Amino acid sequence: MAKQLFDFPNGADLTLPVLVKSAEVRVAKNGKKFIAFNFQDASGHISAKFWDASADDIAQFKAGEVVLLHGKRELYQGNPQIKIYNLRLATQEEGNDPTAYQERAPETADDMGEELNSFIFEITNPNWNRIVRKLLTDHKQAFLTYPAAKSNHHAFTGGLAFHTLSILRLAQSVAEQYASVNKALLYAGAILHDLGKTLELSGPVSTEYTMEGNLIGHIVLVDEAVVQAAAELRIDIHNEDMIMLRHMILSHHGLLEYGSPVRPALLEAQILHNLDDMDAQINMLTTAYQHVDPGTFTERLFGMDNRRFYRPENGKGYPDPR
Amino acid sequence: MAKQLFDFPNGADLTLPVLVKSAEVRVAKNGKKFIAFNFQDASGHISAKFWDASADDIAQFKAGEVVLLHGKRELYQGNPQIKIYNLRLATQEEGNDPTAYQERAPETADDMGEELNSFIFEITNPNWNRIVRKLLTDHKQAFLTYPAAKSNHHAFTGGLAFHTLSILRLAQSVAEQYASVNKALLYAGAILHDLGKTLELSGPVSTEYTMEGNLIGHIVLVDEAVVQAAAELRIDIHNEDMIMLRHMILSHHGLLEYGSPVRPALLEAQILHNLDDMDAQINMLTTAYQHVDPGTFTERLFGMDNRRFYRPENGKGYPDPR
Amino acid sequence: MAKQLFDFPNGADLTLPVLVKSAEVRVAKNGKKFIAFNFQDASGHISAKFWDASADDIAQFKAGEVVLLHGKRELYQGNPQIKIYNLRLATQEEGNDPTAYQERAPETADDMGEELNSFIFEITNPNWNRIVRKLLTDHKQAFLTYPAAKSNHHAFTGGLAFHTLSILRLAQSVAEQYASVNKALLYAGAILHDLGKTLELSGPVSTEYTMEGNLIGHIVLVDEAVVQAAAELRIDIHNEDMIMLRHMILSHHGLLEYGSPVRPALLEAQILHNLDDMDAQINMLTTAYQHVDPGTFTERLFGMDNRRFYRPENGKGYPDPR
Amino acid sequence: MAKQLFDFPNGADLTLPVLVKSAEVRVAKNGKKFIAFNFQDASGHISAKFWDASADDIAQFKAGEVVLLHGKRELYQGNPQIKIYNLRLATQEEGNDPTAYQERAPETADDMGEELNSFIFEITNPNWNRIVRKLLTDHKQAFLTYPAAKSNHHAFTGGLAFHTLSILRLAQSVAEQYASVNKALLYAGAILHDLGKTLELSGPVSTEYTMEGNLIGHIVLVDEAVVQAAAELRIDIHNEDMIMLRHMILSHHGLLEYGSPVRPALLEAQILHNLDDMDAQINMLTTAYQHVDPGTFTERLFGMDNRRFYRPENGKGYPDPR
Amino acid sequence: MAKQLFDFPNGADLTLPVLVKSAEVRVAKNGKKFIAFNFQDASGHISAKFWDASADDIAQFKAGEVVLLHGKRELYQGNPQIKIYNLRLATQEEGNDPTAYQERAPETADDMGEELNSFIFEITNPNWNRIVRKLLTDHKQAFLTYPAAKSNHHAFTGGLAFHTLSILRLAQSVAEQYASVNKALLYAGAILHDLGKTLELSGPVSTEYTMEGNLIGHIVLVDEAVVQAAAELRIDIHNEDMIMLRHMILSHHGLLEYGSPVRPALLEAQILHNLDDMDAQINMLTTAYQHVDPGTFTERLFGMDNRRFYRPENGKGYPDPR
Amino acid sequence: MAKQLFDFPNGADLTLPVLVKSAEVRVAKNGKKFIAFNFQDASGHISAKFWDASADDIAQFKAGEVVLLHGKRELYQGNPQIKIYNLRLATQEEGNDPTAYQERAPETADDMGEELNSFIFEITNPNWNRIVRKLLTDHKQAFLTYPAAKSNHHAFTGGLAFHTLSILRLAQSVAEQYASVNKALLYAGAILHDLGKTLELSGPVSTEYTMEGNLIGHIVLVDEAVVQAAAELRIDIHNEDMIMLRHMILSHHGLLEYGSPVRPALLEAQILHNLDDMDAQINMLTTAYQHVDPGTFTERLFGMDNRRFYRPENGKGYPDPR
Repeated sequence: MAKQLFDFPNGADLTLPVLVKSAEVRVAKNGKKFIAFNFQDASGHISAKFWDASADDIAQFKAGEVVLLHGKRELYQGNPQIKIYNLRLATQEEGNDPTAYQERAPETADDMGEELNSFIFEITNPNWNRIVRKLLTDHKQAFLTYPAAKSNHHAFTGGLAFHTLSILRLAQSVAEQYASVNKALLYAGAILHDLGKTLELSGPVSTEYTMEGNLIGHIVLVDEAVVQAAAELRIDIHNEDMIMLRHMILSHHGLLEYGSPVRPALLEAQILHNLDDMDAQINMLTTAYQHVDPGTFTERLFGMDNRRFYRPENGKGYPDPR
Repeated sequence: MAKQLFDFPNGADLTLPVLVKSAEVRVAKNGKKFIAFNFQDASGHISAKFWDASADDIAQFKAGEVVLLHGKRELYQGNPQIKIYNLRLATQEEGNDPTAYQERAPETADDMGEELNSFIFEITNPNWNRIVRKLLTDHKQAFLTYPAAKSNHHAFTGGLAFHTLSILRLAQSVAEQYASVNKALLYAGAILHDLGKTLELSGPVSTEYTMEGNLIGHIVLVDEAVVQAAAELRIDIHNEDMIMLRHMILSHHGLLEYGSPVRPALLEAQILHNLDDMDAQINMLTTAYQHVDPGTFTERLFGMDNRRFYRPENGKGYPDPR
Repeated sequence: MAKQLFDFPNGADLTLPVLVKSAEVRVAKNGKKFIAFNFQDASGHISAKFWDASADDIAQFKAGEVVLLHGKRELYQGNPQIKIYNLRLATQEEGNDPTAYQERAPETADDMGEELNSFIFEITNPNWNRIVRKLLTDHKQAFLTYPAAKSNHHAFTGGLAFHTLSILRLAQSVAEQYASVNKALLYAGAILHDLGKTLELSGPVSTEYTMEGNLIGHIVLVDEAVVQAAAELRIDIHNEDMIMLRHMILSHHGLLEYGSPVRPALLEAQILHNLDDMDAQINMLTTAYQHVDPGTFTERLFGMDNRRFYRPENGKGYPDPR
Repeated sequence: MAKQLFDFPNGADLTLPVLVKSAEVRVAKNGKKFIAFNFQDASGHISAKFWDASADDIAQFKAGEVVLLHGKRELYQGNPQIKIYNLRLATQEEGNDPTAYQERAPETADDMGEELNSFIFEITNPNWNRIVRKLLTDHKQAFLTYPAAKSNHHAFTGGLAFHTLSILRLAQSVAEQYASVNKALLYAGAILHDLGKTLELSGPVSTEYTMEGNLIGHIVLVDEAVVQAAAELRIDIHNEDMIMLRHMILSHHGLLEYGSPVRPALLEAQILHNLDDMDAQINMLTTAYQHVDPGTFTERLFGMDNRRFYRPENGKGYPDPR
Repeated sequence: MAKQLFDFPNGADLTLPVLVKSAEVRVAKNGKKFIAFNFQDASGHISAKFWDASADDIAQFKAGEVVLLHGKRELYQGNPQIKIYNLRLATQEEGNDPTAYQERAPETADDMGEELNSFIFEITNPNWNRIVRKLLTDHKQAFLTYPAAKSNHHAFTGGLAFHTLSILRLAQSVAEQYASVNKALLYAGAILHDLGKTLELSGPVSTEYTMEGNLIGHIVLVDEAVVQAAAELRIDIHNEDMIMLRHMILSHHGLLEYGSPVRPALLEAQILHNLDDMDAQINMLTTAYQHVDPGTFTERLFGMDNRRFYRPENGKGYPDPR
Repeated sequence: MAKQLFDFPNGADLTLPVLVKSAEVRVAKNGKKFIAFNFQDASGHISAKFWDASADDIAQFKAGEVVLLHGKRELYQGNPQIKIYNLRLATQEEGNDPTAYQERAPETADDMGEELNSFIFEITNPNWNRIVRKLLTDHKQAFLTYPAAKSNHHAFTGGLAFHTLSILRLAQSVAEQYASVNKALLYAGAILHDLGKTLELSGPVSTEYTMEGNLIGHIVLVDEAVVQAAAELRIDIHNEDMIMLRHMILSHHGLLEYGSPVRPALLEAQILHNLDDMDAQINMLTTAYQHVDPGTFTERLFGMDNRRFYRPENGKGYPDPR
C-alpha cells in the first residue's frame, strides 16, 4: 500500500495525492491572498498554507477536490504542518475519488450496525426497545456515517456510531460489575444520546453546525425525535419509562453549563454522562499523542480545558484510536 | 366586607375564618409534636405554629380545611406570623367553602382569556398563530388557573395567566418603541414560554413539582407540546418559523446555568428573557414590600439572590400586586 | 441625496467622501507600515487597511480629515470592510466639513432636550427635581452630544441623550403598568444614571476613556456631581430622598462584578438596571443585524457575552436603530 | 439469622441489639439535654434522638457500646430515623461484642488481599511494582480495614480496599478496550491513589480527620510515603517512572479546586480520575436508593452537589452496594 | 483587679458584673420565650441563653444594662458560652457604669490620636495633607471611638483607629523597604480608607449598619466626604492628586465583588489593599485562637472563607490582639 | 560606564553589545522567516523583530550569543521594542562574555547568603533550623542564582534569593508588630517556600519549566525535599513541628485554584501567603512602571489579572526594583 500522510516523519519530503478537507481564502498582512488548507487522507489530517494564491488557484483548489501534494512535513509552533512546494489537481490514475481519502472509523458500517443490534437485543423493556429500534432504523444511514463532533473527538466518517459503540462496551462492563445498574436503560440512553448530531451537523463531510444545531441544539433535537417516535408508536410519553428515557438523553452533558436542561437524577444517567466523557477524552488524548514525539507535551487541547498532556518516553505505542 | 388577614396590623388580635394552605407536623426539641401552619385568605398567606398538638388536632386541622382562627399578629425575626390563641373548624355559617379563601389574580379568568385572545389576534404569522391557538385551547383550564411558580412569584390562582399577560403588555410597549422588533414572534414566545408549568406543577392548589417537572423540566415540556401540536397541525418543525418559535421558549431563562439548553440567539428571545425576569421581580418585590413597614428592609428574598430591599419611609403605597 | 457608505452592497465598487474616524499606524509582518482605518459617514462606520503607507500618507490621512475614498466593499471573516483602490484628501467642493460625516442620533439635540424636559416635569419630588434640573443644565452641551459608550452601544453623536430617552420611554410604560412603581424616582435615576459618561469619556468625537474614567469610573463620577450639586442647592445629602437617588445611580450596573459598589435594594433601582440593560442590548443587536445578510449569524458580540445572533430569513427589515 | 435494622419497614416497631456508632450530647431549646444517636449494625446505620437525657444516660450510652433498642422506625423530613421507646445496655447473651455490628465490605479482607495481589502481578514495570508492593505490605492492616471516607462513600470497614478493587476491575475493562492505555501505570496509580487515607483518617471505627489530614491532606500524604519508599528501595525519584507514578496520585482529584496540586497530564491519570469518581458515585447513589421507596426521590446528597435522585417505580432491586 | 469574663476556664463557675451587649428575645420550640444574650466586659464577649423568660425578665435585662451574672462557662459545639444559674441587675456598689465594661483598643484614644498626627506630618503633598487633616478633625470623636466592623474584626471601642494605625505601621515598613513606594500617598489612603465606617455604622456601642451603610456603602461614603472637603478647601477634584487619593479609597477592597467600584490601578492602591486585608486577618485569627485550646481547631471563621485554623500545641501564647 | 539598553529613550538610535536572551524563528504572513528576539543586558530586556532572516542569520544569532545591535528604540502598541538597522556577532573587544549581560539581583550572592544566615540564626526551633540549614546547604548554588519565576516577577539571576530576602524583611516587621506571630515558623516557611523552583525551573539562564515542574509542581517538589531531609536527619515527619513546617510550604499559594493542595490553616501560613503575594506584586508593578512614561498606563499585566496600572505624572522616580 502506498505511503500515507502520517507515514512521513517531520522534516521529510513527500509527494502523494490527498483530499482537500477545507480551503479557506484569507488576506495576508502584505495584502495578498493565501489559502489555508486542511489536507486529509485515511491516516489523518494536517494543515498547510498556500501563499500568493492566484484567482485560478482559488478556483480550482476547493474543498472536496483530490490534489497531488508535493511538499515537506514541518513543525510550526509545536504542531505538524506541510510546507507546500507544488500543488496540482490529481489525475484519474493518481486516484481522484474523494471517498478514498476520508478518515474513517476502524470498523465497517456493517460490523458496527450488527454489534449495535446485539446491544438493542438486550434492551428488554418494550417501550425503550421499540423507540430505539424505530429511531435507529429511521436514521440508519446518517447514524453510521456521521462524525461524533465537528472537530473535538471522533471527527471522522462513522465516528458517531463508533463513539456510541465504545460507550456501550464500557456500559456492558459497568452493568456486569454493579448489580444495581439497569442495563436496558443504560443501553437505550447510550444509543440515543448523540443521535441528535445527525440533525445538528451538516453531514459526514466538511461538517458544519446547522441553523437548527445552533438554535435548538442536539440534545433537544433527540428529544424531539423521541417525542415524535412515541406518537407514531402510540406510546404515552407521560409514563415513567418514557420520562426516564428522555431524562437519560436530556441530562447526558452532566452540567447545566454544558447545555443539559436538567442534571442527572438517575443512577444510569450519571453513569452515561461519565462514560460519554471518558470515551471522548480517551479518543482526544490518543489522537493528540499520535501527533507528538515521546518525551514531549501535546499542544493545548481545547476539549480538555486547554491542558497539555505529556507523552512518556517509554510509554505505549499509541496506535490509531479510530 | 369582613376584615381579612392582611387588614390587621402587627400586634392586633384577630378572629376570622381562614383556609389551611399547608399543615406540616413536626417534632419540637422537647419531643412533643406541633403543627407548622400556613393560613390563607384572599388577602395573602401567613405562617403560625400550633404547639403541643394532640392526635385529634393533627387529624382535623389538615390542608384544605377552613378553620376559625383566634390569635394575634406578631413579628418573628422580622417576618409577620400569627400567635394562635385558639383554633377550631369553621361552621357552615362562618363560611367553610375553601374556594372562597384562595389568593387569586386581580383579574378574572374570563377577562384574562379575552385579553389573551386579543394578543393572539396580532400574531400574524400563520404557523405561530395556529400553534399558539391550539396549545392554549388544549390547556385552557390549567393555563387560566395555575400559579406561575410554587412560591417565588405569582404563586396564586391564575398567576400563570396573569404573569403571561403582564409580559405581553410590556412586550406591546417594547414593540411600539423599537421598529426592529418582530411583534408576532415576541407575542407567540411570551404566551408559550411558561405553558410547561401546567405539566411541571401539580395543580393550582397545594402546588408541588411533579416527577416530570423534576426529570424533564418545564422548558422541555413546552417544547414537547409544540412538537406534538406541529405534528397534529401538519406543520414542518424544520422550517425556520418553527425553529425560531422553539428557540424563543428554549432560551427564555437566558443562561445555561438557569436551565435553558441554549442561550438567546434572536433579538426577540433576548427581549422575552428580559421581560420575563423584570415582571417576576416586580411581583416579588411588591409582595415583599407589603409585608414590611415603611423605613425598614424586607427579609432576604431567595428569588433576588438573597438580597434585602428597602421600603422607603415616604414611598408609594404598595397596593396588592396581584 | 448622494449615496452613503451603507448604501453599497458587498462586492460593489464605491467612490465617495468619508470622514477618517480613526487611523492607527501599524507594522505589517513584512516590516512595512500600514494604516488601519475606520471610515465613517452618517450611515455608519467601516474598517479598511491601507498597505505600504509612506511617511506622506501617514502625515495626511489623520483622524478628523475628510478623504475621497475609491474602493470596494468586501466581507472579511464575516464582517464588511473596504478594499482601498485609491485615497486622497477631499476638496472643498467634494465636501470636507467633518461635522457632516458623523453618525448621529435619529433625533435632533433640540427635540431630545425638549422631550427630556417633559419627563423632568413629572419628577414631582422637589429634591430630585432640583438636582436633576441643575445637573442637566450644567452639563447640557455634553449630555446632548456625547455617545453613550466608546464602542459597545449608542456609540454615536447624541447617543447618551438618545439612550437616556429610550430608557425613559420604557420607564413610562412600566410606571403605567405597575401601580407600585415610584415614577418620579425612576425618571430621576434614569436621567442621571449615565451622566458620568460626560466625565469618563473624552468627548463626542474620537472617544477615549479619560484618566478619571479609568481611576474613578462613571458611576462614582455622577455620584460626585450629585454630592456637589446638593451642596450648592443646600439639600442635605443624608436625608432619605438623596440616599435613594444616589442609590439609583450607584446600583444601576446591577452586579458588583460590573462595577456597582452596591446591588439594587429598591424596586425602582432594580427596574432601572433592567431597562438600561435591555435598551443597550436592543441597540447592539439591531446594529449587528444591519451588518449581516438575512439567514446568517452576526459576528461574536463582545457586549453580549460573545454570543452570535441569527438574523432570520423572513424577519423584520432592521432599520437603522439610531 | 435475627432481623437487622434495615429489615424493618417504616412504621414498624423493633427490638434488637445495635451498636452506638456516635452519641452527641446537645442542649434542646427547652434547656434540657438530649443525645443524638447514630445506631448501627451490619445492615446499615440510622439516627435517633434520646430526649431529656439524665447524667446517667449520658454516662452509659457512649459510642462503642452495644445497646438493646426498643423503638419504631419513622420518616423524619423524608429520612428514616428511630423513635426510641426504651434503651438499655445489651447483656452478654443479647450479644454485646461491638465488632459484630459494624458495616463491612461485602468481601473478606483475605479475599480482597488476594485479588489485589493478582492485580499487582500485572504491574510489569519493576519500579512501580516494587513501590506498590512495599507500600501495601507496610500498610496492609490499615489498607484492608479502613473506610474510604468518613461519610460520603464506602464509609464502612474495608471500604478503602473495596473501593480500590472496584476501580481496578473497571480499569481492567478499560485497558482491554483501549490499546493505548498503559495498564501497569493505571493499576499502580489505582492501588496507591487513596492509600493516604490511612494517615488522613483516624481509623476504621468512629472515623475522624487527623491533624495531618487537615494540614497536609491525603494526597500529599501518599506522595510522602512514595518518596520515603523510593529512598528505602534506592529508586531515583527523578526518573520518568517515578514522576509519572507520583503524578497519577497527585492529580487524581482532577481539579485544583478539589485539592489536587496539579491537573491530570497523562492519559492514565485522566482515566484514574474518571474511574475514581464513577465508582464513588455509584456507591453513593446505590446506598441512597436503599433508603427510599420506589417512586420517590432521595434526600439531597452532599457528595453529588446536593442533587436529589429519583428511584424508579419499576427499576432494579438495589441490593446492598457493599 | 477583679477577675473578668475571660479569666475563667471552661467548666468554672463564675459570679461577676457584666454588660448586656445584646439581648434578643426569641420563641423556643416549646412555645416559651427565651433571651439570647451577649455579655461583655473589657476582656471580651460571650453568649448565653436565658430560658423561660418572663415579661419582667424581658423588660429589665436589656442591651446597655449591667447585670450580676452567676453561671458557669461551658463549651457548646466547640464555642464557649455561659450557662446561667442566676441573673439580676447590678447594684451601684457592684459597679453599674456601662462604659466600664466595653472592649477597647489596647491603646488610649489620646495616644492613638497623637500617633496618627505623627503620620499625617509625613504626608508631604499639600492637597492630601489638607484633606486628611480636615476630615480627621471633622470626624475625630467618631474616628477614635468607633469599631472597624460590626463583628468580623476590630469589633471594639477604638477599633477603627487601632486598625488604621496598625496599617500605618505596616505601611511605614513597606515604604522603607521599597524605594518606589510613594509614602505620602500610602499614608493618606490608609488614614481615610475606612473613615466611611463612621457613617456606615450606627455608633461605637451595639453597632448596626445604617440605612446609608446599606444603600451607599462605606466606600462611597468616604468618597462623598472627600468631595465635600475638597469643595470647602477649594481644591480642584479633577487634578491628578485628588483623583489618585480618591482612587486609593475606592479601590481598597481589591475586587469588584467585594464592593470596590474600581480595582487598584496604582502601586500604592494595591499595597493598601494588601495591608488592610492582612491586618484584619491577623486580628481575626489572634482573637479566634484565644477562644480555643492549644492543639485544637477554631470554629469556622466567616471572615476567612469559613476556614478553621489550627492552634498549635507548642505555639505562641496568643495575647489579647486588642 | 558605557550606556545600556534602558539608558536610551523612545525614538533614540543606539549601537551597543547585547545578549540574545531568546531567538524564536517564525514564518511571516508573506511566507518568509523572521526571528523574534529578546535582547538583554544588565539594565533589562527588550524585544525586536528581524525580518527576512536567511539560513545564515538563523544559524548564528542564537540564544546565548552576544551581538552588536544597531537600531532604534520605538513604541509598539504601547510597549518599547527595538527596530533593528543592523546586527552582527560581537567581537572579543566589544565584549562577548554572556555572563556580563545578564539581569541580576541588586545585591551579590555573597551578601544575600550572609543575610539569609542571619535570619536562619533566629529560627530557634531546632527541627526547623536543622531542616532549613540542610536544604539551603544542599541547594546553595541554585538558590542564590535562580530566578524566582520564568517571567512574571523577579525573573533575573539571583531573583529567587532576592525575593526570599524581601519576604523575610517584611516578615521581620510583621513579627515585631504582632506579638502573636511565631517568628521562627514564619522565617522557616519563608526561606523554604519557593525552594522547589530550583527543581521546577531549568536554570538561571533561558529558563524553562522542567517535566517535573509540569507533572509535580514546585510546591510538592519542596515538600519532597523536606521529607527526604527529615529522613536523613532522623526527624519524625509526623510530629507537630514537621507537619506545621510542611503546611507552611504546601499552603503558600493561598487558594486551591492556585495549586496549593491545602489552604492556610495557621496564622503564619496566612501571613506568608500575603507577604509572598505583596512582594511579587511590588516587583511586577515597579518593573512595569519603568517601561512607561509618567502620565500613562502600563500594558495589561498578566500576573495582575490583566489590569493596567497608572504611572502618575508627579509620582516617584521608580528606580530599578532589582
